[in-house]
Amino acid sequence: MPRKLLVAGAVLMLAGGMAWAKDDLAGKANRLFKPIPANAPVLKDNPASPARLTLGKMLYFEPRLSASNLISCNTCHNVGMGGVDLQETSVGHGWQKGPRNAPTVLNSVFNVAQFWDGRAKDLAEQAKGPVQASVEMNNSPAQVVTTLKSMPEYVKLFSEAFPGEKDPVSFQNMAKAIELFEATLLTPDAAFDRYLMGEENALTALQKEGLALFMDKGCSSCHNGVNIGGLGYFPFGVMEAPSADVRPLEDKGRFKVTNTSSDQYVFKAPTLRNLDLTPPYFHSGKVWSLKEAVSIMGSVQLGIKLSDEQVHKITAFLHSLTGKQPMVIYPILPPNSGSTPRPMLK
Amino acid sequence: MPRKLLVAGAVLMLAGGMAWAKDDLAGKANRLFKPIPANAPVLKDNPASPARLTLGKMLYFEPRLSASNLISCNTCHNVGMGGVDLQETSVGHGWQKGPRNAPTVLNSVFNVAQFWDGRAKDLAEQAKGPVQASVEMNNSPAQVVTTLKSMPEYVKLFSEAFPGEKDPVSFQNMAKAIELFEATLLTPDAAFDRYLMGEENALTALQKEGLALFMDKGCSSCHNGVNIGGLGYFPFGVMEAPSADVRPLEDKGRFKVTNTSSDQYVFKAPTLRNLDLTPPYFHSGKVWSLKEAVSIMGSVQLGIKLSDEQVHKITAFLHSLTGKQPMVIYPILPPNSGSTPRPMLK
Repeated sequence: MPRKLLVAGAVLMLAGGMAWAKDDLAGKANRLFKPIPANAPVLKDNPASPARLTLGKMLYFEPRLSASNLISCNTCHNVGMGGVDLQETSVGHGWQKGPRNAPTVLNSVFNVAQFWDGRAKDLAEQAKGPVQASVEMNNSPAQVVTTLKSMPEYVKLFSEAFPGEKDPVSFQNMAKAIELFEATLLTPDAAFDRYLMGEENALTALQKEGLALFMDKGCSSCHNGVNIGGLGYFPFGVMEAPSADVRPLEDKGRFKVTNTSSDQYVFKAPTLRNLDLTPPYFHSGKVWSLKEAVSIMGSVQLGIKLSDEQVHKITAFLHSLTGKQPMVIYPILPPNSGSTPRPMLK
Repeated sequence: MPRKLLVAGAVLMLAGGMAWAKDDLAGKANRLFKPIPANAPVLKDNPASPARLTLGKMLYFEPRLSASNLISCNTCHNVGMGGVDLQETSVGHGWQKGPRNAPTVLNSVFNVAQFWDGRAKDLAEQAKGPVQASVEMNNSPAQVVTTLKSMPEYVKLFSEAFPGEKDPVSFQNMAKAIELFEATLLTPDAAFDRYLMGEENALTALQKEGLALFMDKGCSSCHNGVNIGGLGYFPFGVMEAPSADVRPLEDKGRFKVTNTSSDQYVFKAPTLRNLDLTPPYFHSGKVWSLKEAVSIMGSVQLGIKLSDEQVHKITAFLHSLTGKQPMVIYPILPPNSGSTPRPMLK
């Protein structure tokens, strides 16, 4: 895990305004950010194996994890659409609209915790949430296990993926297999990553000016590390409260997790990687324009009015964060058996 | 196109009861059925090209063809689930339940026409239907074109896929590209196909008995050719009317297309390929058990009560129709632009 993060509210304002010398810029950037690696990291207590990865991918695309048999992880975290659903907030069981914008699955293994409020400590914990949420997949762990056990091919795959276990087909193992697959959904080779690795011309002059502003103005205080974000919790509205359409009053963020008054309207700083692919923005999903999002961040987080030119430059830099999207071969899922539970649409 | 099919109702009863000699069985089968080819057929007025196939696959997985941006072709015709959705009848916009069971997309290029009532002459015509149906994707051709034209990557791909055309981004070209991709979704190499091609042991003894019954009893009168079905229209209920839960009174099938009284409750005989993967059965999707479906067919179409043993044998034969499922690499879809229409959930 990375260095201890800044506590919420204590936003470090870096010396602003000056241009960085060429070497300084790359050097400074390398102290704040890291490239996305080409390969999945090793997960704690969840060793990778071909069987476990195969199973995890199948489960990620498995609509029978939902009560309706219509919704899979990939429905809201579409691997062909930047790992999101391009909705304000996700739509689930019964066409219900959920409370928050779907965070991207891409590179999510590098987040300090999962969900906008960090209530899941890792991707395995996260995977259990939507399966059970009534506005998402509306299923129960017992029903999921019944469904999976009804299909001999899954029973075999779980046994192979979790060898030596007495009861390998479990909700926990479902989550672990999904976590392992999700950890492979990385987007290396963004222009910015190539810049970090020494390819000076990977960024345009405009993007370099944007990068300098991003660091000078203080954006990188919250958005840093390998995911350019995802590492800590901060109030949405450090300097001033965002408008109620952008930050709805009823969603108090991390306060619901910690019940601590200073955590009101505190959220995990999201990754800024692949932002081009993941509108709309913020936990509310109320802002569709990246430039508008940057401008709002300037005023509510940093207390500054960014000029149109500054917004233009920072946005140009953010475009450099789109990496190579993962190559996923669509899994062939097992057939129902006679005892597979039928879809429940109500 | 294959030979003229039997007219509805005139079910040819083949000499029943006798066992086929070994050579006779394969010979007879080869006169009635054909293996699925390994490669997509050439389509009339729709020449394949790498650009058109690439585009077609993207559009097949493109939820932004739907008003909600949530539903793609693959939602109901899931390439990882036998080309279907495992629902009684499909669920679309606003969680509405559609009127009929989703037919499989796999091998559908070999059907004489598309939809249960054959109202689309080919897959391009078919592709236009669900996009516009209010209970499915609930979109309009104009809105689809606006959406596609809003994304520069699609504009470029359509130009490459339909070179020389003045206005390549069109609803018609969307449909043609999808048709071309769908024509690649074939499942060759089923045990039965290997049997047809001379591999005597590709079928078990039980499956051969089932095949003999399938031909002797008359199933193959409607279910023949490369798709073991899909080639003609027949009343559902030749000998007796199915129960109203299996054949709901309000859906009069092809009558709605032709307005001809003899077409009441007439439907396209569906392909029986990959049946293992595509429950539930019939246009109503009311029967989940393949054995039950076979038994119903015996009584309502052939006027015979098949014994449990006969049903068991025929079902064993039907299991031999599951082929090698298509390998599909998930397409990476273009990002929204600022002018891409927002999702409409209402």
